[in-house]
Amino acid sequence: MKLHSYWRSSASWRVRIALGLKGLRAEYIPQHLRRGDQHSTEYLALNPQGLVPTLELDDGTVLTQSLAIIAWLDETHPDPPLLSPDPLQRARERAFAHVIACDTHPVQNLKVLRALRRLGHDQEAVTAWAADVNVQGLTACEAMLPHNADPFCFGAMPSIADICLVPQLGNARRYGVDVQRFSRLLEKESACQLLPAFADAAPERQPDAEEPA
Amino acid sequence: MKLHSYWRSSASWRVRIALGLKGLRAEYIPQHLRRGDQHSTEYLALNPQGLVPTLELDDGTVLTQSLAIIAWLDETHPDPPLLSPDPLQRARERAFAHVIACDTHPVQNLKVLRALRRLGHDQEAVTAWAADVNVQGLTACEAMLPHNADPFCFGAMPSIADICLVPQLGNARRYGVDVQRFSRLLEKESACQLLPAFADAAPERQPDAEEPA
Repeated sequence: MKLHSYWRSSASWRVRIALGLKGLRAEYIPQHLRRGDQHSTEYLALNPQGLVPTLELDDGTVLTQSLAIIAWLDETHPDPPLLSPDPLQRARERAFAHVIACDTHPVQNLKVLRALRRLGHDQEAVTAWAADVNVQGLTACEAMLPHNADPFCFGAMPSIADICLVPQLGNARRYGVDVQRFSRLLEKESACQLLPAFADAAPERQPDAEEPA
Repeated sequence: MKLHSYWRSSASWRVRIALGLKGLRAEYIPQHLRRGDQHSTEYLALNPQGLVPTLELDDGTVLTQSLAIIAWLDETHPDPPLLSPDPLQRARERAFAHVIACDTHPVQNLKVLRALRRLGHDQEAVTAWAADVNVQGLTACEAMLPHNADPFCFGAMPSIADICLVPQLGNARRYGVDVQRFSRLLEKESACQLLPAFADAAPERQPDAEEPA
């Protein structure tokens, strides 16, 4: 398998975590989003949205959209599961994941922030937008966590909720959000970081990682 | 069951379609988004994001996030299925749905458009933003459709892809997008509109529908 990824892309980061949890390896193909690699004709043929991640299977099959890729990984490699066996619990795990993957990340991604710059907003205003979107999303996520002593968001094992949470907290920090207010989310993040699948998926450990500016 | 909905909310519209396809009925509880019903303390206790839809089950269980609700409906009421039995086909159906539900709809919803107004953009600029987001999303969706004679996006039966497509085309028209360029998507929409579940879920058929301005 080949994973088209960008070190800082939080959607790619989710898939990197899921691959790690499943014990799967994929060749890492960097797509430098800031330089525009994703707009090449070759890449657009794989992913008409010009976004990362894209997963290319060994037979040439192409999968796009991080949560669809992760659902496919979970259905074809069921151990360990990334969703609870209980439909109601799955609904809660998915709802939490979708708060991040639908209502948070896409409203603060590079594409949207560039569109705001084109509308004349300076870097400070754009960063404030991104920070506000992150605060809204993480506030909802904190409210959606069950009140119990489980180490992960929805139980004793990480689920799709944790897979979405950890990269989004990374984004929030990049945009200057004081994440200390999300104390329960940070507890879940700490539990995740103890797992190699999460630690190895971090942006700074990717082959295309750059030095901090 | 009770469905908290707003007639024009395309995420609510998706759940209305899914309930119809499953032959399920839910009491319709309107939340008037433009008047701010979704910010009431009572509603925020159900849905901390202050968004629609929310599905309240008869035992008081609360489900949020349209795609998580629809996945729950599909897992607990499997007939007719809203995803193909084949994992690869499911991945394609979900990827298509997520282009809309992650990368399109949330970037042009009421909340984002209001944030743009607060940044000083006039109605024309805000509508142009929403139209552009819709064009990008629908362009990707058109490219993701398989080339065959199936009536629906991914086969002989409607899937989660069709459930997301039809409301998004409704949004695109509202923002003045010339949708004629998406001829293959429009063919799928026409097939959907022949089904009562799709026709009955349309905004103008909801109890809180308003006269066109």
